[in-house]
Amino acid sequence: MSNSINDNESLDPENWEESKALMHKMVDDAFDYVKNVRDRKIWQDMPESVLEQFKTDLPKAPSKAESVYEDLQENVLPYPMGNIHPRFWAWYMGNGTISGVMGDFWASIINPNLGGGNHAGHQVELQVINWIKEIIEFPKTASGLLVSGGSMANFAGLAVARNVKAGYDIRKEGLKENNLVFYGSSEVHSCNTKAIELLGLGTKSLKKIEVNDDYTINIDALKEQIKTDKANGLKPVCVIGTSGTVNTGAIDNLNAIADICKAENLWFHVDGAIGAIAMLSDIVKPQLKGIERADSVALDLHKWLHMPFEAGCVLVKDSKEHKDTFSLIPEYLAKNTRGLASGENWFSEYGLQLSRRFRALKVWMSLKEHGSEKFGRMITKNVNQAFYLKDLINKHQDLELLAPIGLDIVCFRYKPKNLSLEDLNALNKEIKLQLEERAIALPGYTTLKGMYCIRCAISSHRVTNADFDVLITEVLNIGREII
Amino acid sequence: MSNSINDNESLDPENWEESKALMHKMVDDAFDYVKNVRDRKIWQDMPESVLEQFKTDLPKAPSKAESVYEDLQENVLPYPMGNIHPRFWAWYMGNGTISGVMGDFWASIINPNLGGGNHAGHQVELQVINWIKEIIEFPKTASGLLVSGGSMANFAGLAVARNVKAGYDIRKEGLKENNLVFYGSSEVHSCNTKAIELLGLGTKSLKKIEVNDDYTINIDALKEQIKTDKANGLKPVCVIGTSGTVNTGAIDNLNAIADICKAENLWFHVDGAIGAIAMLSDIVKPQLKGIERADSVALDLHKWLHMPFEAGCVLVKDSKEHKDTFSLIPEYLAKNTRGLASGENWFSEYGLQLSRRFRALKVWMSLKEHGSEKFGRMITKNVNQAFYLKDLINKHQDLELLAPIGLDIVCFRYKPKNLSLEDLNALNKEIKLQLEERAIALPGYTTLKGMYCIRCAISSHRVTNADFDVLITEVLNIGREII
Repeated sequence: MSNSINDNESLDPENWEESKALMHKMVDDAFDYVKNVRDRKIWQDMPESVLEQFKTDLPKAPSKAESVYEDLQENVLPYPMGNIHPRFWAWYMGNGTISGVMGDFWASIINPNLGGGNHAGHQVELQVINWIKEIIEFPKTASGLLVSGGSMANFAGLAVARNVKAGYDIRKEGLKENNLVFYGSSEVHSCNTKAIELLGLGTKSLKKIEVNDDYTINIDALKEQIKTDKANGLKPVCVIGTSGTVNTGAIDNLNAIADICKAENLWFHVDGAIGAIAMLSDIVKPQLKGIERADSVALDLHKWLHMPFEAGCVLVKDSKEHKDTFSLIPEYLAKNTRGLASGENWFSEYGLQLSRRFRALKVWMSLKEHGSEKFGRMITKNVNQAFYLKDLINKHQDLELLAPIGLDIVCFRYKPKNLSLEDLNALNKEIKLQLEERAIALPGYTTLKGMYCIRCAISSHRVTNADFDVLITEVLNIGREII
Repeated sequence: MSNSINDNESLDPENWEESKALMHKMVDDAFDYVKNVRDRKIWQDMPESVLEQFKTDLPKAPSKAESVYEDLQENVLPYPMGNIHPRFWAWYMGNGTISGVMGDFWASIINPNLGGGNHAGHQVELQVINWIKEIIEFPKTASGLLVSGGSMANFAGLAVARNVKAGYDIRKEGLKENNLVFYGSSEVHSCNTKAIELLGLGTKSLKKIEVNDDYTINIDALKEQIKTDKANGLKPVCVIGTSGTVNTGAIDNLNAIADICKAENLWFHVDGAIGAIAMLSDIVKPQLKGIERADSVALDLHKWLHMPFEAGCVLVKDSKEHKDTFSLIPEYLAKNTRGLASGENWFSEYGLQLSRRFRALKVWMSLKEHGSEKFGRMITKNVNQAFYLKDLINKHQDLELLAPIGLDIVCFRYKPKNLSLEDLNALNKEIKLQLEERAIALPGYTTLKGMYCIRCAISSHRVTNADFDVLITEVLNIGREII
């Protein structure tokens, strides 16, 4: 078989001009796709005929790039998730931006591996990390890493916590005793639970502390639990403070947690996937006081910084502790004193990944283009809009706010008189589904104290106040229709 | 402060036509950048003046997108890693492709979150996973997930192995006994060690078995070690077979490992980051016999499938065991029976990440455009080239091959007469560095049995045989110059 191989064949376009023309067409179409996002349905179900297209076997023979593009246009583009639309307020996501797209485009063209080495990509990521340290008010000596998202950022922070606080060489010996304890509120994000499980600690090692009425961690209960655990021979190692819970946007009292961690010699980790980047917003920043005292912080730049997926970030205050958790240099990764393989502190020494995409580039280009103050204004805008929506809800007797506004998250329900809890839950679930199926808006949902909530996580840079007027009008219309 | 906020401000371009024009310019430049890659230096050091550019503080005010692009052109593009160049044979990486760039471009434009939900992106990833199962000859009932790379793919496979074979509910209880044992050869990739550490098992739990002369795992030694460990009260749980070691491309005897795992009731994981995708090559496929018997396989599509970073993949034969390791559904991720939040088996239930980039799209578009057979020919071409290079080495009395050719990896050195081991090592290290600094080629290096090797991992779709003629000529020239 190997005789039929031509050493000049490659995966490069056979005709560069044709390929370039196709890419230009894609750019025109793509820019229009983003620009006209309001004119298309936010979401629609895929018909069976489209679903069938995804069931074909591995393509063995080639196709024209143009026909692959037609396939994309017919079967993929009309059926998006909806999250680039201004009225997507479901799971907490950003919209993406054109500057982010440009950065991602170049990342794929240059295609370096950010695992390590002496090349410009490494400097770009270092600079981006330095900027994020500046935003979070971490010292210059801290370390950081861009990762796939909040799940990995939290995993990394908790891994360092585990290794630093266990009291023995856990990298070599493994978990010798089944007694380490982590703490978070009952609202702590599930990715922390997943991290604890993967780290070998078991869900039983994550003690979930009750919350106050505003869904922030109950500090007294936290203190009490630590005391009880110590009395029972367990070894408390870390408290996870949440800055922006997923249900209601609640921000734990970070300074109070920092005090406890200092007194008890515990690791202080902040899950800031939702809220940490809101340090850029003048109106949110005061609520985040204490974040700068954390030992590690997890952020998600594809949420409120609107980077295209994926862009998470972990910061660790003590760079040595960070590196000591992840650095592992076998023979074939040994460094040189000159050339490409030179340089200290490769990024692969600060996380799980060895090969790493140049995800820093989109952040670098976006922050340079828009400037951090504009990103701050976008965050403030969303917070203002949450209160605008709150006012709309409070004005109407058949609408009920179900939790205090945390950051930009509003939980409410349609509540006409004389309906049981069960009926209200079914009614609001149906309203939420019909909003979606009629392509009006895509709010999320959750359950608080047994009550089904329509939940709006307002993290769109494209949304305007008028969109919430539409939401309220349609919730009432649909609600009345159903009854 | 919030009064100064305009609810109509967004991160979208203020002038769409200007922004589109910039993107068109970027496309022209980027295509030329790839097309003319041979005409530029494969690698060059950054001068101090460029390094200074990366030390500026967080940009608070905006800049024109055009000036950000100038910054990219001046300070980033001229200083690449080198891995898109045909003469990059260092760390094992792919080149990237234009079809991959197009896929990544659209992934950033559409910007869905592949964590879950009922939208076209989910179907695309399902189809890509099905195609990869077809390539690896896994059954249709197997599950899979695209991940950041080989490190995460191996981590995921080993996490399932740990949880399935521990014999108790490790997700809930954590590691109760410090007695689980994993096996791999002494050539097993370091990311597996990192995974074992993060999973809480400790490096002591990864027993490294000696290799044969061809750097494949010694099957008898493996059997012996399992027997010894059991006699000592340890609990063997998993054997990692490597298909393509990083040093020499050696492929373990996968069928022999499968037999042992069957007899001993162990999990059989294949680290196929380098070699598994070579199932597409007629000449390599027979060497991979037995991979279809694995419980889990890790692949890296940004290596020999030339996807732009990142594109790893894990396959697990028993989809329930896979899901049971990762699925975790809190209230706010509860599914609906209709609408966006419907559908079984969300991808976030099969891995660590909740938010996930649409990395499937580039794979989908590339496989459709080129067809799997062409990717197979690209792999075969590289293997042929490894033997072409071997012949060049063997023809010259001052060159010495240092290991059998595994897949596409060639380890050799310049060896003039009458030099000590120490001098030979220093000489070859200097040759390798000067190849790089003179921008001739970028081979890698490793040390085998104490001997410094110039190591060529030939995973470029752009390389031709003539490039190896240049390499050999220049190795001899530089070697003679130094002596």
